[in-house]
Amino acid sequence: MAASELKIFCPATIANISCGFDVLGVALDSVGDEMIIRKVAEKGIRITKLTGQDLPTETHLNVAGVAGLALLGESDYDGGFEIEIHKKIKAGSGIGSSAASSTGAVWAMNELLGTPFPPLELVKFAMEGERLASGVAHADNVAPALFGGFTLVRSYEPLDIVPIASPPQLWATVIHPQIEIRTSDSRKILKTNITLADGIKQWGNLGGLIAGLLMEDYDLIGRSLTDHIVEPIRSILIPGFDKVKSDAISAGALGCGISGSGPSIFAFSKGEDTAKKVAAAMKGIYQKIGIEYDVHVSKVNVEGVRTL
Amino acid sequence: MAASELKIFCPATIANISCGFDVLGVALDSVGDEMIIRKVAEKGIRITKLTGQDLPTETHLNVAGVAGLALLGESDYDGGFEIEIHKKIKAGSGIGSSAASSTGAVWAMNELLGTPFPPLELVKFAMEGERLASGVAHADNVAPALFGGFTLVRSYEPLDIVPIASPPQLWATVIHPQIEIRTSDSRKILKTNITLADGIKQWGNLGGLIAGLLMEDYDLIGRSLTDHIVEPIRSILIPGFDKVKSDAISAGALGCGISGSGPSIFAFSKGEDTAKKVAAAMKGIYQKIGIEYDVHVSKVNVEGVRTL
Repeated sequence: MAASELKIFCPATIANISCGFDVLGVALDSVGDEMIIRKVAEKGIRITKLTGQDLPTETHLNVAGVAGLALLGESDYDGGFEIEIHKKIKAGSGIGSSAASSTGAVWAMNELLGTPFPPLELVKFAMEGERLASGVAHADNVAPALFGGFTLVRSYEPLDIVPIASPPQLWATVIHPQIEIRTSDSRKILKTNITLADGIKQWGNLGGLIAGLLMEDYDLIGRSLTDHIVEPIRSILIPGFDKVKSDAISAGALGCGISGSGPSIFAFSKGEDTAKKVAAAMKGIYQKIGIEYDVHVSKVNVEGVRTL
Repeated sequence: MAASELKIFCPATIANISCGFDVLGVALDSVGDEMIIRKVAEKGIRITKLTGQDLPTETHLNVAGVAGLALLGESDYDGGFEIEIHKKIKAGSGIGSSAASSTGAVWAMNELLGTPFPPLELVKFAMEGERLASGVAHADNVAPALFGGFTLVRSYEPLDIVPIASPPQLWATVIHPQIEIRTSDSRKILKTNITLADGIKQWGNLGGLIAGLLMEDYDLIGRSLTDHIVEPIRSILIPGFDKVKSDAISAGALGCGISGSGPSIFAFSKGEDTAKKVAAAMKGIYQKIGIEYDVHVSKVNVEGVRTL
């Protein structure tokens, strides 16, 4: 008999990686939501339990519910699903909380239905959850949550996702200063035009970053983790950003930037020891300023969402 | 006794490869300048012979002369060099004519002096030739002429060049319609601002192109050879461009775009047979329009400038 229930882990993700604004994301190994998805005879999607965060459980107001409905709408399955969500990722922290729940739901449903949908279709369903969460159906958290590793959204029309292997010693440190920034606000302050000169710098750096990842050239990764366009504007919303960044780099990080639309700040390091030193340096700033924080030190997750 | 004379080949190059405007170039195997560089006791640089093109031979007006002077200025060698240039690349064709002469000169001089300068210094010297030719000291033709294969100029300040391996079956077709476009004119018509949305598309595509080259994914290379920013503007200066591009792609090319600042048009193909079919398709357009042309079908050059 085929499984009628799956217990899964769906990873947190860093999107908008420096020069990879809107196109490059990566999955984390040690932070993510746990979910139980149950295939049931009753039609529709029900969120039967939600722990860890205060979030809506009405299907059409819950990102996993909306993503699941998108899948059901394209499926010839005439039953339904129940979803239990155990949030380990804080909503609004900037490490793909909504993407984890959306992606986990549609991945598990597809598994329970015998994988009728290819991965790219699952990305599209999960993007409907992102649309609910932020008003924009972006793919740069969903794609790494699904595929693991780094993922490049080469194009939205048509949707084209390129999984990029992660060098084996790459670790991430993420600090979440507990202040609130709404994604819509942090999008609003961006300029709609940029100079061609800044654009050239940005695509030069993104090319360098992709090359560094694929050639396992950690120094090149570090030199390429530069953002001339978004970080100078958005970092104003994150108290202590410049100091966190400079201290992270002094502690040995390859590079450092804003995770998603913030307020979390990520740094990449070569090896776990350095990633831990970087965590200590980042913490030091928020202890001094007196802002509460969470900090995660994680290897890059290379498999994406998985059963537990 | 060390060689006191070198006969060399310095390849033609395609710069501004679609989404890689100002950052990505590639060297060609079957087109390039031949040069003889002679180490002599007499101080300074002299262009003793120049065949194939009507170009100035006064040292300070010749790109190889100017690049050579830049090298001499940083060297503790107190003699000089004589340069013979046998141009096989047409000046103004958009496939790195000036870069070939500049790069060949400084590479050979460095060899004759026992390689006192690292490659990045040679790029800087050759860029002085580019400054003379076009008013801008760009590196995106010089770098592939020197290193071979594809090269990414990740950054100008500081100068950072990333050699990118070329997939083994990648061939280029280049057609040069014999009309004149001045580099300065084709630079002038570019807008100094772009939309952030177009920028995101461009760096998504450049990321895809770098990934495609390194992962030897020819389809991804093809999908990524898209330019939303420069090609729509500059192609207006090249008669027949849209038709050449669509016919090249119909003939099997992975992608097609403007070489350098034009008027040459390049296409990439998987394999020599397809590259030849693409050449036939491109030629057909200019035969019909009645514009003279040269066409080159070439494997990617993977070693750069070399002795003959």
